[in-house]
Amino acid sequence: MKCILLAASAAAALSAPAAAQTPPSPSPAGQPAVTRPAPTPPAPVDPRVAALRDAALKDEVGYDIVEGLTTEVGQRLAGTEAEARARAWGAAKLKALGFKNVRIETYQMPVWVRGAEEAEIVSPFPQKLKLAALGNSGSTGAQGLTADLAVFPSMTEFVNAPAVAVRGKIVYIGNSMQPTQDGSSYGANGPARFTGPAMAAAKGAAAIVIRSIGTDTHRLPHTGVTNFPAGTAAIPAAALAVPDAEQIERMAKRGKPIRMHLVLTPQQTGSHESGNVIAEVPGSDPGAGIVLIGGHLDSWDLATGAIDDASGVAITTAAAKRILDSGKRPRRTIRVVWFGAEEVGGFGGEDYAKKHGTERHAIAAESDFGADRVWRFETTLPAGAKPISDRLASALAPLGIVRGTGGAGDGSDIEATIKTGVAGVDLNQSGLRYFDVHHTPDDTLDRVDPAQLQQNVAAWATMLAVVADAPEEIGSVTRP
Amino acid sequence: MKCILLAASAAAALSAPAAAQTPPSPSPAGQPAVTRPAPTPPAPVDPRVAALRDAALKDEVGYDIVEGLTTEVGQRLAGTEAEARARAWGAAKLKALGFKNVRIETYQMPVWVRGAEEAEIVSPFPQKLKLAALGNSGSTGAQGLTADLAVFPSMTEFVNAPAVAVRGKIVYIGNSMQPTQDGSSYGANGPARFTGPAMAAAKGAAAIVIRSIGTDTHRLPHTGVTNFPAGTAAIPAAALAVPDAEQIERMAKRGKPIRMHLVLTPQQTGSHESGNVIAEVPGSDPGAGIVLIGGHLDSWDLATGAIDDASGVAITTAAAKRILDSGKRPRRTIRVVWFGAEEVGGFGGEDYAKKHGTERHAIAAESDFGADRVWRFETTLPAGAKPISDRLASALAPLGIVRGTGGAGDGSDIEATIKTGVAGVDLNQSGLRYFDVHHTPDDTLDRVDPAQLQQNVAAWATMLAVVADAPEEIGSVTRP
Repeated sequence: MKCILLAASAAAALSAPAAAQTPPSPSPAGQPAVTRPAPTPPAPVDPRVAALRDAALKDEVGYDIVEGLTTEVGQRLAGTEAEARARAWGAAKLKALGFKNVRIETYQMPVWVRGAEEAEIVSPFPQKLKLAALGNSGSTGAQGLTADLAVFPSMTEFVNAPAVAVRGKIVYIGNSMQPTQDGSSYGANGPARFTGPAMAAAKGAAAIVIRSIGTDTHRLPHTGVTNFPAGTAAIPAAALAVPDAEQIERMAKRGKPIRMHLVLTPQQTGSHESGNVIAEVPGSDPGAGIVLIGGHLDSWDLATGAIDDASGVAITTAAAKRILDSGKRPRRTIRVVWFGAEEVGGFGGEDYAKKHGTERHAIAAESDFGADRVWRFETTLPAGAKPISDRLASALAPLGIVRGTGGAGDGSDIEATIKTGVAGVDLNQSGLRYFDVHHTPDDTLDRVDPAQLQQNVAAWATMLAVVADAPEEIGSVTRP
Repeated sequence: MKCILLAASAAAALSAPAAAQTPPSPSPAGQPAVTRPAPTPPAPVDPRVAALRDAALKDEVGYDIVEGLTTEVGQRLAGTEAEARARAWGAAKLKALGFKNVRIETYQMPVWVRGAEEAEIVSPFPQKLKLAALGNSGSTGAQGLTADLAVFPSMTEFVNAPAVAVRGKIVYIGNSMQPTQDGSSYGANGPARFTGPAMAAAKGAAAIVIRSIGTDTHRLPHTGVTNFPAGTAAIPAAALAVPDAEQIERMAKRGKPIRMHLVLTPQQTGSHESGNVIAEVPGSDPGAGIVLIGGHLDSWDLATGAIDDASGVAITTAAAKRILDSGKRPRRTIRVVWFGAEEVGGFGGEDYAKKHGTERHAIAAESDFGADRVWRFETTLPAGAKPISDRLASALAPLGIVRGTGGAGDGSDIEATIKTGVAGVDLNQSGLRYFDVHHTPDDTLDRVDPAQLQQNVAAWATMLAVVADAPEEIGSVTRP
């Protein structure tokens, strides 16, 4: 999961296509109630869809994929030999599951790798702290650097600080991120990571350490990519574990200058191969457009990426497998993509759109927000396809999934495809636990609740059964 | 906290002095109920004791000590300059709080220090694992060693394994430790760490990695001391984080040999200075014996030791401070000791007993099981002092503390003193969260719940008020 939630909330602010379905309250305060129009009866649920959905609640394929990929491959940083092993593992697994047209499509991408990572308070209270370099961080060199901290409680204070307060120092930026159901606190607090380092470089800082963009209190820092604009030299940039960030804030309250020694030796290693793994459930009507689903295969290097995003590839693949095994060829081809190199810049999604952007896609949908239960769905469908949303609402309701009023098309891997005018369907997962673990060494198999994973598979199987067989045409949409 | 809970459960098994107070059920199934004897009325609570207790629920001194020691000193491994800084910090703090006879008593001890720590599965599923060397671990040398794993699900299977199954291999020992209120699962599962490495060395293993003796699922290994008998060369010995241990167990189920590369470069650095910090609330009756309380000042090197055991020194000190400030000199001198070098072998407790064992002690009591609420008290008092336990029962009941039927005298720092025949009073804390964090990098200030810490201070202040002023003689006890 990258900064897609920023895009999501921006989209939500700009568009509420379903809002018109809910009339404003007819009973202003102090006035007699007006009779509401009779509610539209829910769309009937195709018994075949209901049966597929209910059977998927006992799915075992999804967990098997997460368990296998995380155990037999482990971490799979984009562009490394580990990601190549993951592609081979994925292609073999997809073939063994009976998918058609299984292939790997490769591309080249710049690769950054982690080095040594040490931080130590030199004075006034000598002690070591835990941190992890951010993707694209510069290096301090093996000897490290020593400088005073410029402590900012949040991004706002840092943005407003003059360069003179920062020059030659190590910038510290705090945050007060809390868990949110829709993950929107990531969008609110993430800029300290997304753009803080570039801004610190522009203000002349020697380096930057941020409080992890996370909601846990373990000594496991949250890494993640940052970007420096062309022409700006990357400064050393890292995230402190939350307890270590709190330690700095306690020290700062004591009022004495805080001096830190920092060693970060990551490297840009040049261009290397990455790739997407693609598989299909062939449809009967080539003209009806492809249903594109998937997640990303690469993970950060600190953990086995069980929730980010082995679960996403597992959920979407297990759902497609249920259609494959259902005995009825779907109208539309379902294409499952295990995208490469999402974490470090969305290279897999870009490559897919470059190679397949001219093919007709009916919808694109991604699972990249962990493995906790789906609580809401949202769609961005062209006008004539609205009955599909009504049928989704009826079919998903027994899974505890409500209909949202925002747009859809979340997921950085499908972003480039969505931008070409393809409709989106989002199955939103609960974000309440996600940022406890996101991009930390704790993103391991034990974080996946098998029952919640099954609910996800059931939601996706339901969505596929409804959308892939929908008789309506699903044409291009104009994105808000 | 070391292996004291083994001793505690052994003591509980051997003695139940208060059990006679609870008659066996007079109503066997199917028979008419027999009238129980009228219960003994509870001992009255001295209003002064009640007032001290209730005021202590708003204590701020305890949290201030934990916060200060963990922030301003941080980790304080025994025998290092960090522990020396902690002693200086402690002596200054105790003087500032107004304690009398504040002094540092030093001794020499052997010091082991951590080095590099890396583990990597070479085949069949290459990936890095997280682990931490155990105290007194041998070194692999900088180049490390590579060997096949001999996987044992638990200590029992390992104990029963012939040497030929182990020779030249890296032993893995699992466990299935669960949280327990009284911490007894530490005693049940701890031997894999306490004696597993020595046994592995005796069987000819190249090294040993155990599943952490812990109840969490974070990628933070639990260190802790192990011991090799004289004449046995220390082999490399480490604890894997629980998710990493589970990863090995999943790999093992696939049936292929697992090859590991292990780098551990800790060192024994010879003899260095450690010490105890001692402070007193002087009593009015030197002949009545000292009330010895405290916790240990040293911590493991991976964290700031907030619950192990900054909380113990803070709780006991804050409680003694309440007696100091109460305006009434206690009958007995209360001696607070911040013991050094507990984690690595109880050197501070041994030195204290050597230097002070001939002084008359009324009781000894230690707080070394975190910062969660006290739920039970137990005593080992000589016959004539039994009314003290009755008064404790009445005075502690409003804090939700029940009277236990086992013996007392837990705490490795007071073990040597208790062995001389000194009575013990235990205020048992809940162990349900303790082993999530014990000896891991997560033992930081955020683990301390201020309200539960205050309940501890109130319990200790109550105990001190009752015991230090008790008119009864508290003579020597024969330990079970």
